[in-house]
Amino acid sequence: MPTIVVEVMPKAEILDPQGKAVAGALVRLDRSEFTSVRIGKRFELTVDGPITADLLAEARAIANDLLANTVIEDVIYVGEARGADGSQTAAEGA
Amino acid sequence: MPTIVVEVMPKAEILDPQGKAVAGALVRLDRSEFTSVRIGKRFELTVDGPITADLLAEARAIANDLLANTVIEDVIYVGEARGADGSQTAAEGA
Repeated sequence: MPTIVVEVMPKAEILDPQGKAVAGALVRLDRSEFTSVRIGKRFELTVDGPITADLLAEARAIANDLLANTVIEDVIYVGEARGADGSQTAAEGA
Repeated sequence: MPTIVVEVMPKAEILDPQGKAVAGALVRLDRSEFTSVRIGKRFELTVDGPITADLLAEARAIANDLLANTVIEDVIYVGEARGADGSQTAAEGA
């Protein structure tokens, strides 16, 4: 079924304790290629029919109203689910 | 800084109570365009230098070892962070 993806990340200036914990674990496990880790949420909204511009606009409204706490989070992406190879069919930056 | 994105979603056959709760809230708010909602995690791993194939392979290993509980979750994507317009520069399906 067609799926719209919404991605929400903590605002850059907000402390991300979970991300820091994972980054610390990576260092302890000698996997220090990565300088920092940030953790956010990924929503998949399934729709019955084709994905239209109206549906994308509705998904963005829902993302900002319900799915993200816009005080501490940013909606960074609203668009069709990516193919396995990373190609994106139709998308609008959030 | 160059960033590798790792996306983790609950396995399809696994019950997603959080997703169901959000889907229920959408119905109660008369926003019923979306038939189901699933919620996963999005990690951003920041690296100092350029993103190489080795780094992507390391990120995938870390994703499967540490970032996902592979009993109930799938790593669905490991690749460079998407540009704001949804275009993906270099990516490998997870």
